[in-house]
Amino acid sequence: MSTTNLQVTLKSRPQGWVRESDFALVETPLPEIGDGEVLLKTLYLSLDPYMRGRMDDAKSYAKSVNLGEVMVGGTVSEVVQSRNPKFNAGDVVVSSGGWQCYSKAPGDALMRVPQGFPPSVFLGPAGMPGVTAWIGLFDIGAPKAGETVVVSAASGAVGSVVGQLAKEKGCRVVGIAGGPEKGAYVTGVLGFDACIDYKRDGWFNDFKEATPDGVDVGFENVGGEVLDNVLRRTNPQARIALCGLISGYNATQPIALANLRAILVNRVRLQGFIVSDHLPRWPEIIRELAGRIATGKLKYRETIANGLENAPKAFIGLLKGENFGKQLVKVA
Amino acid sequence: MSTTNLQVTLKSRPQGWVRESDFALVETPLPEIGDGEVLLKTLYLSLDPYMRGRMDDAKSYAKSVNLGEVMVGGTVSEVVQSRNPKFNAGDVVVSSGGWQCYSKAPGDALMRVPQGFPPSVFLGPAGMPGVTAWIGLFDIGAPKAGETVVVSAASGAVGSVVGQLAKEKGCRVVGIAGGPEKGAYVTGVLGFDACIDYKRDGWFNDFKEATPDGVDVGFENVGGEVLDNVLRRTNPQARIALCGLISGYNATQPIALANLRAILVNRVRLQGFIVSDHLPRWPEIIRELAGRIATGKLKYRETIANGLENAPKAFIGLLKGENFGKQLVKVA
Repeated sequence: MSTTNLQVTLKSRPQGWVRESDFALVETPLPEIGDGEVLLKTLYLSLDPYMRGRMDDAKSYAKSVNLGEVMVGGTVSEVVQSRNPKFNAGDVVVSSGGWQCYSKAPGDALMRVPQGFPPSVFLGPAGMPGVTAWIGLFDIGAPKAGETVVVSAASGAVGSVVGQLAKEKGCRVVGIAGGPEKGAYVTGVLGFDACIDYKRDGWFNDFKEATPDGVDVGFENVGGEVLDNVLRRTNPQARIALCGLISGYNATQPIALANLRAILVNRVRLQGFIVSDHLPRWPEIIRELAGRIATGKLKYRETIANGLENAPKAFIGLLKGENFGKQLVKVA
Repeated sequence: MSTTNLQVTLKSRPQGWVRESDFALVETPLPEIGDGEVLLKTLYLSLDPYMRGRMDDAKSYAKSVNLGEVMVGGTVSEVVQSRNPKFNAGDVVVSSGGWQCYSKAPGDALMRVPQGFPPSVFLGPAGMPGVTAWIGLFDIGAPKAGETVVVSAASGAVGSVVGQLAKEKGCRVVGIAGGPEKGAYVTGVLGFDACIDYKRDGWFNDFKEATPDGVDVGFENVGGEVLDNVLRRTNPQARIALCGLISGYNATQPIALANLRAILVNRVRLQGFIVSDHLPRWPEIIRELAGRIATGKLKYRETIANGLENAPKAFIGLLKGENFGKQLVKVA
């Protein structure tokens, strides 16, 4: 065990695109733990689009990261010291350790990683992104067999789960992702019916062909032109779960929508949601997802950056869609 | 009774703003009625923003008016000939007679105007606009006492009813309308708590002051900058009933929204609706509204253009917000 901690802190609030210089890598003393707490060594750090919001000081559902504070984030961590009778050194847990090599936490805040799983899946398809997919798809999208479901960022941590769950429901599932490699994975491995490359000029025509019966359910992670084209294909009474607007997180200009009127004409329900509003349901949903991973039914892919110092670069790549599947950082 | 009919037909599809030259005034023979039908003389024609949509040939919830066809519209009409045993000459009914002096209809399609009311109210606060207000406010907005409800086009046929119903529910009600005269009416006569003039530069600050506890329910008739500012003030779990986007009906450019992200961050439900999806509920809602008109509880105002030939001009004025309250045309 090291005698010092390494942390990535927020150095400056981004203006437009995040830059690596908005973060600082700092060395600090190891945290000291009190009664009931454990000292954790980070094995994997999860990188997720919501973190972009925490870098701003705009009013939001969760408080911003202050300048000089450690960036927040979910982690899979190993207990290295315990003052909690329920945990022993060597236990592997899911925590919110943040962008650092060591963290402390009260034992109550931890979920023990079940046997027989690669622990990183609890940061991806059986973790926060998977629960996000489940809640947005079923609570808001409420897809029925035979309906058409469209998922943007389709190869990503959330989108890949959304599409597979919708296939299980008997829907026609169309993904939207950047580039032919992601598209081949989305249809060939994940089993979506089609995947549209939003980097192709005039991709709306591809999208139109792939949705001959229109769109009944949208699961929106991107926003901007993607949302606009989804709106354009909506059927009457379509539901769109608004999960993210990654295309706009670094934008300084308003988002222009040519097809907002479709919400009116087609009586669309566009609804935002936040997975942390539904914490009591997480354990049950995680069990459902983990069960599908255990049987090989729910497939996933990870992109793993090595070393905490590479977290800022990997995060910027995530915002640009350069990752493929769930973006993680291997810390220890 | 005249021996000929006068009709306003659609001459050309508007490019951007509607022009009077998009309509034609034509003389035609009186329609002949068959068994079960009545011949109707139009007393009042209702002018409503939805008619702008029917002038386009874009896919929509209702079919477009074809070039050369009579413009559609709700009417209060007098029976002048009847081949239906339920109706006699002289009866006054609500119909969908369109922009013309005479029309025919099957008796089944008609609602008899109850005694004791000025018949025009069944085209306004106790007609389609009032039912629209009721359904959007209660089904989608679902306001609770103490919540803040914001209504755009607040002095209009729909908005004026929305706000009065929300006051009855015990809400704080803020209107948005153009100009001080409409504002004074909205607060002084209709009893809203505040009314914001969207024609003032920097009106967002006025709006912010008028919504110290944020916005829980929006009833959106306008779109564009108005919708954007409402989104900016939303509270968590806010509901926005999207009833109209009048600011965009004549726009040829996409609508730019700077605050779309509020839908995500505040888990907003933005939902479009169409009053004609709910026809079975109309009679009950009309009774509720007419009851409030009879007791003087529900107030309304009308702007009446004289003569069918002035309908195009009055309609263009409506789209520009030049009317004050319900826009009607006195035809006969």
